Amino acid sequence: MESLNIIKVGGKIVEESASLAELLRTFSSLEGRKVLVHGGGRSATSIASQLGIESKMVNGRRITDAAMLKVVTMVYGGLVNKNIVASLQSLGINALGLTGADLGYMLSTKRPVKDVDYGYVGDVRSVQSEILADLIGKGIVPVLAPLTHDGEGHLLNTNADTIAGEAAKALSRHFDVTLTYCFEKKGVLMDENDEDSVIPELTRSSFDRLTREGIIQGGMIPKLENSFSAIDAGVKQVVITQASELGRGSGTVIR
Amino acid sequence: MESLNIIKVGGKIVEESASLAELLRTFSSLEGRKVLVHGGGRSATSIASQLGIESKMVNGRRITDAAMLKVVTMVYGGLVNKNIVASLQSLGINALGLTGADLGYMLSTKRPVKDVDYGYVGDVRSVQSEILADLIGKGIVPVLAPLTHDGEGHLLNTNADTIAGEAAKALSRHFDVTLTYCFEKKGVLMDENDEDSVIPELTRSSFDRLTREGIIQGGMIPKLENSFSAIDAGVKQVVITQASELGRGSGTVIR
Repeated sequence: MESLNIIKVGGKIVEESASLAELLRTFSSLEGRKVLVHGGGRSATSIASQLGIESKMVNGRRITDAAMLKVVTMVYGGLVNKNIVASLQSLGINALGLTGADLGYMLSTKRPVKDVDYGYVGDVRSVQSEILADLIGKGIVPVLAPLTHDGEGHLLNTNADTIAGEAAKALSRHFDVTLTYCFEKKGVLMDENDEDSVIPELTRSSFDRLTREGIIQGGMIPKLENSFSAIDAGVKQVVITQASELGRGSGTVIR
Repeated sequence: MESLNIIKVGGKIVEESASLAELLRTFSSLEGRKVLVHGGGRSATSIASQLGIESKMVNGRRITDAAMLKVVTMVYGGLVNKNIVASLQSLGINALGLTGADLGYMLSTKRPVKDVDYGYVGDVRSVQSEILADLIGKGIVPVLAPLTHDGEGHLLNTNADTIAGEAAKALSRHFDVTLTYCFEKKGVLMDENDEDSVIPELTRSSFDRLTREGIIQGGMIPKLENSFSAIDAGVKQVVITQASELGRGSGTVIR
């Protein structure tokens, strides 16, 4: 199978024009088939605030009421996605911006209300990988916004890490997928105070051991659980690295 | 050649959920290949106003400064486009929302400043019809937002009538194109006070005569000039009708 790079970028780097331009230059120079998945939470928070809408977060996840859904549809589906697409086109990349509703490629279900009502947030139900694979095979570069749809006419807000993971799993039926999560640090660190203590490779057993020893902790645990679940579902490797290190073979590799 | 319906809708009808839902139901029931082109000016004005940005219009055209470009990118490319796409998906239509930057399908040049500085407004330079024709041939229904790109990384605001006309001209190399402009009246009227005085058919010579006689006047003249220019460029027919009359064979037909 052909290889495919799925790169997820989020945070400050996609929302400041200089760092975004640098990232897109690096992304455009990556060889072979590729997909970009972006976030945009800071811009959503900023536009929401300008519209007098307060952003509420629980466990790092945005509560998406009807007004906030409108904001994320504008910001993720419009502002962030279309500017990335236009920039990539100027770099010779045939980018196509997609939400899950476009081509019906990612269907989700509104998250059931348990302890927390996350509002219009979608848990991914299925991915139409054929239509994506077909576009990618033609040299098109999908740029995926963190929005899905429920098949009944509603858009839903879906975490960009999840979009990247689900797209990677589904596309692993068509390609040898490397899923790269760009992160604010250079990778998974042995010592959180030492930026150069990147763990080069993690297996399920070393992950379990490092978690027991308390070396891997906090928000990194669910990120890595997702990574192992992607591997179990057929993704060839997951890389956790810094955006500035893209394409340099650095970071933590999960196989 | 196969036939293709390109339907342009704008104004109030796309911005009120009940009338939009009705329109999309009608659109989804139209037989054969189709494309939807939408506006969204009222929503843009409303969001801009909520953001404290004043909308300035000259000759019915929006002045698009940097702040307004951000708004129209959010509203046309995100809010309006993605909600239409999600609704069409729920109606069994495989919709794909596109700005001109997506797949690089519509390239424009920033309008030169003459008497008026329209700001970030793009005049269409070229259309990549092959990529659109290929999608349409696969049963995909493009939903075109009124945004183009300059190939240098910038989005530009482009009138939705123009997007529809340029897409129709370019696609007439691949399909027998009927371009329908949905309008607030039932068609071109012989008597502007009589809604039922629709002129069923216009040729260049009858248009010239009716214009000389003052029966056709105002904003209808450029609309019809555009229609004749589309016919000259290979579009099979242009229909001017009311959205509620879509698919009923009514309205004014220009051949």
